[in-house]
Amino acid sequence: MNVTVGRQTRHYRTVTFDSANNSVELIEQRLLPHRFEIVATRDYRETARAITDMVVRGAGAIGATAAYGLAQGARAFRGNNFEKFSAHVDTVFQTLQAARPTAVDPVNAMLQVRAQMQAGETVAEQQALALAAAEDFANEDAAHCAAIGRHGVKLIRNGMRILTHCNAGWLAFVDVGSATAPLYAAQARGKKFHVFCDETRPRSQGATLTAWEFAQQNISHQIIADNAAGHLMQRGEIDLVIVGSDRTLGRTGEVANKIGTYTKAVLAQRHGIPFYVAIPLSTIDWNLRRGSDIPIEERDGSEVLGAWGVVQGSKFKVQGSKSGGRAYVRVANPASGARNPGFDVTPAELVTGIITPAGIFRPGDLWRRRSELGFVARPG
Amino acid sequence: MNVTVGRQTRHYRTVTFDSANNSVELIEQRLLPHRFEIVATRDYRETARAITDMVVRGAGAIGATAAYGLAQGARAFRGNNFEKFSAHVDTVFQTLQAARPTAVDPVNAMLQVRAQMQAGETVAEQQALALAAAEDFANEDAAHCAAIGRHGVKLIRNGMRILTHCNAGWLAFVDVGSATAPLYAAQARGKKFHVFCDETRPRSQGATLTAWEFAQQNISHQIIADNAAGHLMQRGEIDLVIVGSDRTLGRTGEVANKIGTYTKAVLAQRHGIPFYVAIPLSTIDWNLRRGSDIPIEERDGSEVLGAWGVVQGSKFKVQGSKSGGRAYVRVANPASGARNPGFDVTPAELVTGIITPAGIFRPGDLWRRRSELGFVARPG
Repeated sequence: MNVTVGRQTRHYRTVTFDSANNSVELIEQRLLPHRFEIVATRDYRETARAITDMVVRGAGAIGATAAYGLAQGARAFRGNNFEKFSAHVDTVFQTLQAARPTAVDPVNAMLQVRAQMQAGETVAEQQALALAAAEDFANEDAAHCAAIGRHGVKLIRNGMRILTHCNAGWLAFVDVGSATAPLYAAQARGKKFHVFCDETRPRSQGATLTAWEFAQQNISHQIIADNAAGHLMQRGEIDLVIVGSDRTLGRTGEVANKIGTYTKAVLAQRHGIPFYVAIPLSTIDWNLRRGSDIPIEERDGSEVLGAWGVVQGSKFKVQGSKSGGRAYVRVANPASGARNPGFDVTPAELVTGIITPAGIFRPGDLWRRRSELGFVARPG
Repeated sequence: MNVTVGRQTRHYRTVTFDSANNSVELIEQRLLPHRFEIVATRDYRETARAITDMVVRGAGAIGATAAYGLAQGARAFRGNNFEKFSAHVDTVFQTLQAARPTAVDPVNAMLQVRAQMQAGETVAEQQALALAAAEDFANEDAAHCAAIGRHGVKLIRNGMRILTHCNAGWLAFVDVGSATAPLYAAQARGKKFHVFCDETRPRSQGATLTAWEFAQQNISHQIIADNAAGHLMQRGEIDLVIVGSDRTLGRTGEVANKIGTYTKAVLAQRHGIPFYVAIPLSTIDWNLRRGSDIPIEERDGSEVLGAWGVVQGSKFKVQGSKSGGRAYVRVANPASGARNPGFDVTPAELVTGIITPAGIFRPGDLWRRRSELGFVARPG
């Protein structure tokens, strides 16, 4: 999407590849929203570290980063010894896989790259194919998000006020995003609408990343406390909810997403407001049979007990600065602890529809229509 | 309630009066939870400023502060001229009333003091009666909260996990608090329970004030993001919700309280969890006919866009420090704005019961049983 730096506006992807320098270029997401910077990793180890250190986050974005990282590692190999080359590629694969062990996207992305490499008969051929395959993966990710936008745009009517939660935007993918795709598509068609961004405590991705995206794209928006959506719905100020998902169960239509999503779905149902979930097909889990079986990560309490931000006011001088000048402040009572579940599960009955690159589906129809959704039977 | 400073634990009220020095003593609430300090105001103007500047907040607490402030002002008068004394008392009244113009408690408290003063026939007599009346008001406030505790304690069973929102604790009153009163009473009877404190963004009173109170009283508690309560209810980890109220409509049973309260009530109903509201009788509005007529204060967006806390980490040095060493950090995207409604209205159908000093009432029964609740017909 577009980013304006100084007086210049240009199009960026979250992840790109510089073939001349054999480097992966990433938007340094830890600096957002306070600073926009592109970092280039010089080798696959640095690329793995960028994934681990959250320079890049989001399913599609880390998938593309790992795909490019595998190509980067393969291209750095010197010589013609095919056996040594294969062993080297294995090492690169494992290093990038270990960078975010719980994520499935990097592995799937790299498997796709490795499969396409097999057509090459020399080291040089495989090196060239690796990069082409990584580019394919990134382009596909962007194309899938664009397709989500084409289907979802039908839901956006002029004058609508839309609620979104967390960041399922282009920063989480290669471009366009999932929950944001219908909005960007609607804007491109000249529709007028307003978005309320849930702050999304404790990590505040709505206030930081989603709001930054919307500001860059000139989309009318306001940040609200997570507590405020119910009140706005009650007063008739929200017409539609669109969120993303970390995992959607193909068998039941249950949706796992950032903590607080379930609450918004309950409120939307009470007020008769449509609640949509936008996802790429890779997010569908065809194996798990019950939402209650989805493991819910219990994250560190410090996220709840404080906040990251840029210290304001002339009375304060911050010396030394990391993370875009941000500091961590302890908000809560120092002697108190926290519970911090990172995700929750929304039952299918609260979900109006699932927006996918293949069209919009009722959550209860996913399994029956699984062939349209790219279902492939895999070992459980 | 008890506060431990260093190795010493002693009982404090939020507001007390030092008759030797003619000063009002207040817990400096802006420094909590990071520093505990008592400040003494030297004259009624300083007392008014303490109300304006939020040194003291909460309905009962500012009521008692204004009552003491009126006595303080009356007692500072030198001479026997009754007419001049009365004019002076009027000035004091108006100054304290203007300190928080939207609040009704300071006015009601001062009217009560002034009525009791009338029995005095000399300046000296009225001065003495003013202080006695202010003490009466503070004692009544504490007694009402204790009565809420006696009625509400029946709801607390051993092993319960209780959710509360914002701060309706003793810091908001003279002692004991409203929503917290049943918990303190249960603790005194040896019951074991655990409290989840909603962080309560954007001002975080749950994470700061309520958590501080519970830590001081050794009540088992954890802070959660406002987003997390729905998930905990879904997993069967919350048995009861108790909140306070800024205004409860006697005619309809609708409850206005801190933003986010409505959301918790909707979630509680979905999960069949009892939802109680604890209030002193002064909180009941017998005039207003519809909850939608309650004006909802739209507060400054900066509350949503950032947070107040103590800067952590050796990389950062904060020079100069106000508010207990706290700094304001900008969390959100700098180019984005916010909507910030301060309160919401929960309909009676979501409220299991209203805990008052006169007993527990169903919200729909308030009007029918208004004589038990101290209803006095007042002009509209």
